[in-house]
Amino acid sequence: MYDVVIAGSGPAGLSAAIYAQRAGLKALTLEKNPMSGGQVLNTYEVDNYPGLPGINGFDLAEKFRAHADKLGCEFKEAQILSVREIAGREGNAQLQAASSDCGGPCPKGFVLETDQGEIETKTILAATGATHAKLKIPGEEELAGMGVSYCATCDGAFFRGKVTAVIGGGDVAVEDAIFLARGCEKVYLIHRRDELRAAAVLQKEVMALPNVEIIWDTVAERIEGQEQVESLQVKNVKTGEKSSLPVQGVFVGVGIIPSSEVFGKLARCDEKGYLAAGEDCATSCPGLYAAGDIRGKKLRQVVTAVADGANAITSILEYLAQGDIR
Amino acid sequence: MYDVVIAGSGPAGLSAAIYAQRAGLKALTLEKNPMSGGQVLNTYEVDNYPGLPGINGFDLAEKFRAHADKLGCEFKEAQILSVREIAGREGNAQLQAASSDCGGPCPKGFVLETDQGEIETKTILAATGATHAKLKIPGEEELAGMGVSYCATCDGAFFRGKVTAVIGGGDVAVEDAIFLARGCEKVYLIHRRDELRAAAVLQKEVMALPNVEIIWDTVAERIEGQEQVESLQVKNVKTGEKSSLPVQGVFVGVGIIPSSEVFGKLARCDEKGYLAAGEDCATSCPGLYAAGDIRGKKLRQVVTAVADGANAITSILEYLAQGDIR
Repeated sequence: MYDVVIAGSGPAGLSAAIYAQRAGLKALTLEKNPMSGGQVLNTYEVDNYPGLPGINGFDLAEKFRAHADKLGCEFKEAQILSVREIAGREGNAQLQAASSDCGGPCPKGFVLETDQGEIETKTILAATGATHAKLKIPGEEELAGMGVSYCATCDGAFFRGKVTAVIGGGDVAVEDAIFLARGCEKVYLIHRRDELRAAAVLQKEVMALPNVEIIWDTVAERIEGQEQVESLQVKNVKTGEKSSLPVQGVFVGVGIIPSSEVFGKLARCDEKGYLAAGEDCATSCPGLYAAGDIRGKKLRQVVTAVADGANAITSILEYLAQGDIR
Repeated sequence: MYDVVIAGSGPAGLSAAIYAQRAGLKALTLEKNPMSGGQVLNTYEVDNYPGLPGINGFDLAEKFRAHADKLGCEFKEAQILSVREIAGREGNAQLQAASSDCGGPCPKGFVLETDQGEIETKTILAATGATHAKLKIPGEEELAGMGVSYCATCDGAFFRGKVTAVIGGGDVAVEDAIFLARGCEKVYLIHRRDELRAAAVLQKEVMALPNVEIIWDTVAERIEGQEQVESLQVKNVKTGEKSSLPVQGVFVGVGIIPSSEVFGKLARCDEKGYLAAGEDCATSCPGLYAAGDIRGKKLRQVVTAVADGANAITSILEYLAQGDIR
């Protein structure tokens, strides 16, 4: 039986693996892909992880994994199919797999069913991350990392003095437009409807910015460019009129999808589907912790993911030290 | 007038400088010493900052600073003497320097008085860190980083299978002993009194550990060793009896002192003197934020400091976007 199974090997999971190993825990990190790194793997350049300026995402992922390997962390490639709790001494002997929130007594541990067999563990750290919703239009995939981005905080600084477009009308898109407006010459905010979904305060802010132009009732149809994004083809959904915007960057802000299918059955999620947990990474289910992009929090970055990994292991050490779970 | 003045250039301050620069803020980082890095500078080896395994603290500090320099961050060597608020439009025109909590309306900004003159800024990020209380006994300074440590989470893994001593009787010392007991052959917990100050649950845990020996009524008098710690000389304060413990590591857990003299006058502090602020790093004083070891939080590590820097700048961007402060 493991002390902790870490589900996911992005920055949060790898940081947790490092902290768990150094703390002497019997820990196993599960990864669904043959490569560690999570979303970082597909990031062209990461310029905000202090100490490693301008590093390629693939290289950063390799450095993280090499660090964990150097310390002797244990990894296994496996897909988690479901999780069930082993009832604790004071708990109901009946397994509570179907309950949406274990709530009650401390479970004695968990059984993870994976495509590689069952794994028993005293605690679980959910670090399965999130994915960005795609536009699914021509050019999006081809030019990802070459002008197409899903994170203004991450990549906005690469577009200083340039013209960019943000696609979407919710909080994330409007926040991205506000962020980009600080450095970009001009920002188009392209929304398919005639009003934004974003919070009123954000709407007020973005509308007050002289270098943000909101293009209503319009969808993106195609991103064009050779080596880099050069233009965005859009269509007005009311008039059917098509036009081309000369932009160097396209920021897609149409949604983030937390990978919480499995763990969301055990613990409370927030209204957006993220696992609800504070800075200590403890979820509503005793023994289940959440770190990185799967956790409900403000800022999803490599720096906040690695912090989560460390905070989660600290919480897990405290949990394991409490009596009979040890 | 700056958008933000970052006070302190440890990992939290440098991460904030990087995030502020990439966000296009007019930011200035003040440092009291000619070298950036804070406590990391004096750390022999940092093995838990993912991606840079086993790095010398001095080298890590240099990498962080080089990253900030590469992005063009502005630094100034200056000692902050005091801070006063500039009252906002809705505020009382009278300066509120003497108030312990500005509480009321949003200040328009702050004036920092430094030994290099006055600096005006819309917001301040307090990242002045903390220092560990010293034993002030022979051998402590000479063997710092060579077996003498102030952080079990940071350095405990270097002492796996070895014999260590923890000095202190409060929460930190007892937590350190519990942490070390996972990997060390034996841990002495040395306390000057006949009972611990730590929380009851921690006392129960530490007393249940077979490889922790609590040595009561005893003070450390001298740490001995050539290249590395070899033994700890102790004295029983009741009997006067002296003895020597063969240890390879000495963990000093006699207290942490947040460097909050200046900013503690503007915002609420917790019972231990840290600036009270959540994960968003916002203090009780509008416009004043806290990041890194100065903030009241569970885990003080490089990873949590760099996360704070990013979270704080995100909060500051939101604050600056609110109306007339912009």
